[in-house]
Amino acid sequence: MIVSNTLFETEYPYNDSKIVVFGAPFDSTTSYRPGTRFASRTMRAESYGLEYYSPGQDFELTDVPFFDAGDLNLPFGDINQTLKIIESYTAEVMADDKFPLMIGGEHLLTLAPVRVAFKKYSDLALIHFDAHADLRDEYLGVTLSHASVVRRIYDLLGDDSIFQFGIRSGDKAEFDFAKEHTHLQLFDFSGLEEVIKKLHGRPVYFTLDLDVLDPSCFPGTGTPEAGGVTFLDLMKAAFKVFDGCKVIGFDMMELSPPYDPSGISTATALKLLREFLIRINSNLARR
Amino acid sequence: MIVSNTLFETEYPYNDSKIVVFGAPFDSTTSYRPGTRFASRTMRAESYGLEYYSPGQDFELTDVPFFDAGDLNLPFGDINQTLKIIESYTAEVMADDKFPLMIGGEHLLTLAPVRVAFKKYSDLALIHFDAHADLRDEYLGVTLSHASVVRRIYDLLGDDSIFQFGIRSGDKAEFDFAKEHTHLQLFDFSGLEEVIKKLHGRPVYFTLDLDVLDPSCFPGTGTPEAGGVTFLDLMKAAFKVFDGCKVIGFDMMELSPPYDPSGISTATALKLLREFLIRINSNLARR
Amino acid sequence: MIVSNTLFETEYPYNDSKIVVFGAPFDSTTSYRPGTRFASRTMRAESYGLEYYSPGQDFELTDVPFFDAGDLNLPFGDINQTLKIIESYTAEVMADDKFPLMIGGEHLLTLAPVRVAFKKYSDLALIHFDAHADLRDEYLGVTLSHASVVRRIYDLLGDDSIFQFGIRSGDKAEFDFAKEHTHLQLFDFSGLEEVIKKLHGRPVYFTLDLDVLDPSCFPGTGTPEAGGVTFLDLMKAAFKVFDGCKVIGFDMMELSPPYDPSGISTATALKLLREFLIRINSNLARR
Amino acid sequence: MIVSNTLFETEYPYNDSKIVVFGAPFDSTTSYRPGTRFASRTMRAESYGLEYYSPGQDFELTDVPFFDAGDLNLPFGDINQTLKIIESYTAEVMADDKFPLMIGGEHLLTLAPVRVAFKKYSDLALIHFDAHADLRDEYLGVTLSHASVVRRIYDLLGDDSIFQFGIRSGDKAEFDFAKEHTHLQLFDFSGLEEVIKKLHGRPVYFTLDLDVLDPSCFPGTGTPEAGGVTFLDLMKAAFKVFDGCKVIGFDMMELSPPYDPSGISTATALKLLREFLIRINSNLARR
Amino acid sequence: MIVSNTLFETEYPYNDSKIVVFGAPFDSTTSYRPGTRFASRTMRAESYGLEYYSPGQDFELTDVPFFDAGDLNLPFGDINQTLKIIESYTAEVMADDKFPLMIGGEHLLTLAPVRVAFKKYSDLALIHFDAHADLRDEYLGVTLSHASVVRRIYDLLGDDSIFQFGIRSGDKAEFDFAKEHTHLQLFDFSGLEEVIKKLHGRPVYFTLDLDVLDPSCFPGTGTPEAGGVTFLDLMKAAFKVFDGCKVIGFDMMELSPPYDPSGISTATALKLLREFLIRINSNLARR
Amino acid sequence: MIVSNTLFETEYPYNDSKIVVFGAPFDSTTSYRPGTRFASRTMRAESYGLEYYSPGQDFELTDVPFFDAGDLNLPFGDINQTLKIIESYTAEVMADDKFPLMIGGEHLLTLAPVRVAFKKYSDLALIHFDAHADLRDEYLGVTLSHASVVRRIYDLLGDDSIFQFGIRSGDKAEFDFAKEHTHLQLFDFSGLEEVIKKLHGRPVYFTLDLDVLDPSCFPGTGTPEAGGVTFLDLMKAAFKVFDGCKVIGFDMMELSPPYDPSGISTATALKLLREFLIRINSNLARR
Repeated sequence: MIVSNTLFETEYPYNDSKIVVFGAPFDSTTSYRPGTRFASRTMRAESYGLEYYSPGQDFELTDVPFFDAGDLNLPFGDINQTLKIIESYTAEVMADDKFPLMIGGEHLLTLAPVRVAFKKYSDLALIHFDAHADLRDEYLGVTLSHASVVRRIYDLLGDDSIFQFGIRSGDKAEFDFAKEHTHLQLFDFSGLEEVIKKLHGRPVYFTLDLDVLDPSCFPGTGTPEAGGVTFLDLMKAAFKVFDGCKVIGFDMMELSPPYDPSGISTATALKLLREFLIRINSNLARR
Repeated sequence: MIVSNTLFETEYPYNDSKIVVFGAPFDSTTSYRPGTRFASRTMRAESYGLEYYSPGQDFELTDVPFFDAGDLNLPFGDINQTLKIIESYTAEVMADDKFPLMIGGEHLLTLAPVRVAFKKYSDLALIHFDAHADLRDEYLGVTLSHASVVRRIYDLLGDDSIFQFGIRSGDKAEFDFAKEHTHLQLFDFSGLEEVIKKLHGRPVYFTLDLDVLDPSCFPGTGTPEAGGVTFLDLMKAAFKVFDGCKVIGFDMMELSPPYDPSGISTATALKLLREFLIRINSNLARR
Repeated sequence: MIVSNTLFETEYPYNDSKIVVFGAPFDSTTSYRPGTRFASRTMRAESYGLEYYSPGQDFELTDVPFFDAGDLNLPFGDINQTLKIIESYTAEVMADDKFPLMIGGEHLLTLAPVRVAFKKYSDLALIHFDAHADLRDEYLGVTLSHASVVRRIYDLLGDDSIFQFGIRSGDKAEFDFAKEHTHLQLFDFSGLEEVIKKLHGRPVYFTLDLDVLDPSCFPGTGTPEAGGVTFLDLMKAAFKVFDGCKVIGFDMMELSPPYDPSGISTATALKLLREFLIRINSNLARR
Repeated sequence: MIVSNTLFETEYPYNDSKIVVFGAPFDSTTSYRPGTRFASRTMRAESYGLEYYSPGQDFELTDVPFFDAGDLNLPFGDINQTLKIIESYTAEVMADDKFPLMIGGEHLLTLAPVRVAFKKYSDLALIHFDAHADLRDEYLGVTLSHASVVRRIYDLLGDDSIFQFGIRSGDKAEFDFAKEHTHLQLFDFSGLEEVIKKLHGRPVYFTLDLDVLDPSCFPGTGTPEAGGVTFLDLMKAAFKVFDGCKVIGFDMMELSPPYDPSGISTATALKLLREFLIRINSNLARR
Repeated sequence: MIVSNTLFETEYPYNDSKIVVFGAPFDSTTSYRPGTRFASRTMRAESYGLEYYSPGQDFELTDVPFFDAGDLNLPFGDINQTLKIIESYTAEVMADDKFPLMIGGEHLLTLAPVRVAFKKYSDLALIHFDAHADLRDEYLGVTLSHASVVRRIYDLLGDDSIFQFGIRSGDKAEFDFAKEHTHLQLFDFSGLEEVIKKLHGRPVYFTLDLDVLDPSCFPGTGTPEAGGVTFLDLMKAAFKVFDGCKVIGFDMMELSPPYDPSGISTATALKLLREFLIRINSNLARR
Repeated sequence: MIVSNTLFETEYPYNDSKIVVFGAPFDSTTSYRPGTRFASRTMRAESYGLEYYSPGQDFELTDVPFFDAGDLNLPFGDINQTLKIIESYTAEVMADDKFPLMIGGEHLLTLAPVRVAFKKYSDLALIHFDAHADLRDEYLGVTLSHASVVRRIYDLLGDDSIFQFGIRSGDKAEFDFAKEHTHLQLFDFSGLEEVIKKLHGRPVYFTLDLDVLDPSCFPGTGTPEAGGVTFLDLMKAAFKVFDGCKVIGFDMMELSPPYDPSGISTATALKLLREFLIRINSNLARR
């Protein structure tokens, strides 16, 4: 009689779940338009509006055992404390041998699960879909910000470990840095298959900044960048990663609902999440 | 570490609670601008943004044992089935000797808890704050609609049982009916004290259509009517009802979040709800 | 079976009507935020959402014989041509001994019906409710603009003929001009009764710039000015004018629906229009 | 001097028209985001903003004799009564040998003209463009809802009669049903030519749920589904249907203006309507 | 020929100005709805839409020599660095014997100019208009946040130095703290005259959180609190402070334009700023 | 410490600049949805949100010496005076041998710089990207309007001088006129290379109506026309013009920010402007 209040009304308990979804509502370092703090909350509230069956994959989301942990309680303005809370929760999830799936929040937060994963997997690689390179060393003296997250991850993982796709924005120094230290594909997903082959067997953390999508289909984000990929491009590329790599953690970042009164960005993020939960589950089953 | 996803993050279990709040997301008979189906969902999602302490009453909401049941699962387009589901849930709550507090949804839904209450209390009275008389006998042949709810309640409770305040809209037949069969106060709360005295000892169901508020402070509703009462007027009048009457059930109806992009209507509804939960709890304690 | 597409679904033909309502969708000289061109169209489209009965006056709008002429076809950017078209239509209406009621559009357009009325009534007076004095002689060389309309009317009517209320904005020169040549009441309607007495018997054109209302209850206007009057203040003051003066024409100007996504401004304008149509009709009947 | 208030300012009377356009403002069974009730009203109000000439077809819409009947008066919440009113009006139009073109409203309403057409043509087929299969047998016990409309039509028309394109959402049971009983093309219009050939000579009712479009170009709908077709894809596919089939009725459903503050969805629906009116007219002329 | 791009198009150079206005676009610790970072930018862009003459004070803003410094460059996410930058700029302004007028941004930023002022005036007092007490000692371990700003100021100024008005929100500990250590007036400005008398001769920093206004007239703020003061109440109370106290610095905080699509909040903030610039200037002249 | 308030924070003085950008905020003849008057102001306010480096061109915008002149002061409603002011400013810029880059405003304004350029270059040609033909001779007697601008330019430049691309809207007479007197490419940029070759050596004024973009990626415009080009199509086509022609002036017209609450239209216009400033600068350097 009562509707469940969780993401897609999931009712799997933590113990029975292979995937643990949690929200990370924080956007204190966002430099242009804040609002990603509302992403997980809005996605949860709107998720009942979507069918739970995927015609493309012919699979029911209700058959995917995933737990919706809710949102972490993060202190706005305190980056270090925030990262610690996320690390602590992700560590718990990974210690229980479950797959962590974070819903941001700003992109800086990806640093937390990567730190945890790197402790477990010293050969960790990062696959990064984004419009922005996020390789800035600092900004006005701040070294922990959404524009620096991949640079901070580089500090951990080092050369030959970071693979970026769809990038179409950044300052000159970032692109210069990428030439030396990361694999950076401008604008689209060209070369993704080769990267996947090269990463064979290596554990991969996969981070998706939703602004890799073109603003026409995803206006609800902090820094819209014209010239992005389509929904289908993104879904296919992500499926390749999930199918071809040993993905050990995933996040979807930078949905900012207040900047999309039509709600299509939230609906699109939810559809991607449905497809990805099904896909991750199938691949975990196969391992 | 995880934020609770309930109204005001309440964590009281059903069994320890004196008040049970539930959402009734349904607006199929709304004739002008629909959207009240989103009220309970939006209030829940936004409720963490409010302080839980009332400076006016000097009381912590966290000390009020109330249960957030979540939303009922109601079939759009099927009025009778919808009313039955609400009746069934309300009956459960009242059978357990708890106070039912419904968050609408359209005003028609008030018929359900009143039907249940009337089975228990044959001398039940209704106090009704609203911009609209809701006394229409039918509309295009439809007898169960938001515009007829008080008329249907009249069919149950009969004369000398319905007390309406703040009314400033309706058709002529409604006002003619009111002259004969209800106590109807135009525009404001004049005469409320007298009514409360008269009702001494009688069980009262109290229904609040939030559009009794002026559209300036409450734009987010289906049928805004200029010339309404202020937030403070409403709060004071409602306090009088809770303090002076034996209120056995309450509802807050007709918040329509899509029509208020500023969010002040949701914030106002939440502040009223906080104040009313504290007030109801104090009065229940005194009984 | 089919809903009429007119204002309040009126079906009175021109010939049977005492009042003729027409829309004047034009805002080319608006200097800040345009959009009043959509006022009449939006009011017509939303008017079915209001009850047609006035509880305050105990009268049915459906008993008021008024004709909805629709919108005039006005060429954006061509002020002179626009004024001529409005003059021509108003002249037709007044020649048929009907009461013209224009829905703006920007305030400049009031010049057109006043020109027509002045041809018929050489002792014409103007009652003007507005936040802005509209007494500017010119702006960047332009003498016909929304900020100059009352000055242009002064050029016709001269001293002792213009009575302004609610004014709270303008440049210094305008207020200096008013001291010499108009009756200007700052902020509110003080002194309205005296003015009405003084105007006894004199024909009055009554123009209402809806931004005289406080932005809290009327956000949808081009130039919102804090510190305005309430809906009830305005309604009562306007009733005094309709009851106490020989009003021979009326307009409601400056509703700009695009600036009010909540729709309360349109709803308020429509409620005022319903009340005024009933009041004008009663007073015409009494003459 | 006065602008006509009809769709595209058409002034053809009913008797001189081959096509009759009418609005059906009803959305009581919409399960996610209501608002399609405003579609016909908003399209009418905005239609003057479009050119009436089609450069693609080199034809003037003003040369297409179509009648704008206005909106039907439908009782919210009463599905059966609503369907009856639409059936009655469509029957009138078809009895007069005119082409009915309905503007929804929610998709359930399509059942009404199909019922009427099926009485006249026992070999009727349905061509259905949509993001959703709409083949649900019931939802919470309700068998008449927007999600069940094609299933209810199947109950009438039976096997080999329903041809669905662009479908990308539904529950598993719907897709299983489609495998047995309908022709269902996932995602796009592949195979449309073959279907058209197969239907040669058979009367066809053509129903277009506008959410078949990608949300990027059509955000204003109740249930946006990423991964849809483009405007040009849709226009070309619909032209094929109009040119190759004996279409005897058409509808455009599910535009929900409140969810698109930019207005591009309404503008797109209007452009499609202009193109389709011209195309239908040309094809009727050829018969 | 070219319009100046400054606040109210002011063209006074720094050296000729008595008042220096600067923007502080920062909202990293905002816990509910961010967006105050856009306040100064939006006010500057919209300020040309207001008349520059005050009819109430009969004074031209163009005769007030004030400099618009533009916006400070503040690093999102780094609170300490941000406060330092503001302190440094304010110190410069005060060293040049000019009056600093900051436009926030979130309320935490007020700490910066108060720190500077306290270095100069060891007997500094604070007058604080706000809906929120802002007296929290910490939140999730964070001691520098918008909810703690007055507590941090108390740490500097100590007892008998802080005077709060309009307060209607906070947690219990804040109100308990206020009973001991600050003068806190619930809901309105009662007792303001007495406070002003008591402060005679003492230097006062005056901080205005615009959410002291009722949400009906000021929806565009991060945490709207029903039951606030009106525009006229606020203007009159602020005039009393400017006229009766030796105000040595002032700020207007917490306008959040993205939450008010109607723009009335920005327009109201600008009107207050115009009135206050004129008032501050007159009072500085009198000293 | 202070952020510059100019477009992209440019600080090049006029004398050191090769390109002069100025805003022309005027939309009085816009016939459907006004708002382009806010384009330059909004672009300036949002421009800091974009990276200043172009990864596609590998060039820093900060190395392009361009001057942001601000906005011209234009009298709403007075077309002739407005055109004169723009002509006067453009003449100044061209006399100083600088490249004028105007940001509209409505498209009519393009007439002003073309008039100036034609005085200097008697063999001037126009390249015109737009959804609309803009070839109307007059509308309701008005010959100077946004729908007639290219026709008025034709009156100056004559046959073989006007090259239109992307056109998909207009009345029949416009397309008939184009067949005789202009080169008009329907829907896309086919044939652009040939036109560029043909124009070899001839001075070209390049005008871009941003509504040539599809409404999905550019909803914020007065008259959205489905079926347009993509961002990448447009960027590539414009690069061909800048690289292959002797462009002596350029404008970007018809961004209307109020119709795009998501802000993607403004962000897209800014990204185009960044790319074009870099491209124009490179080409000027090569001459």
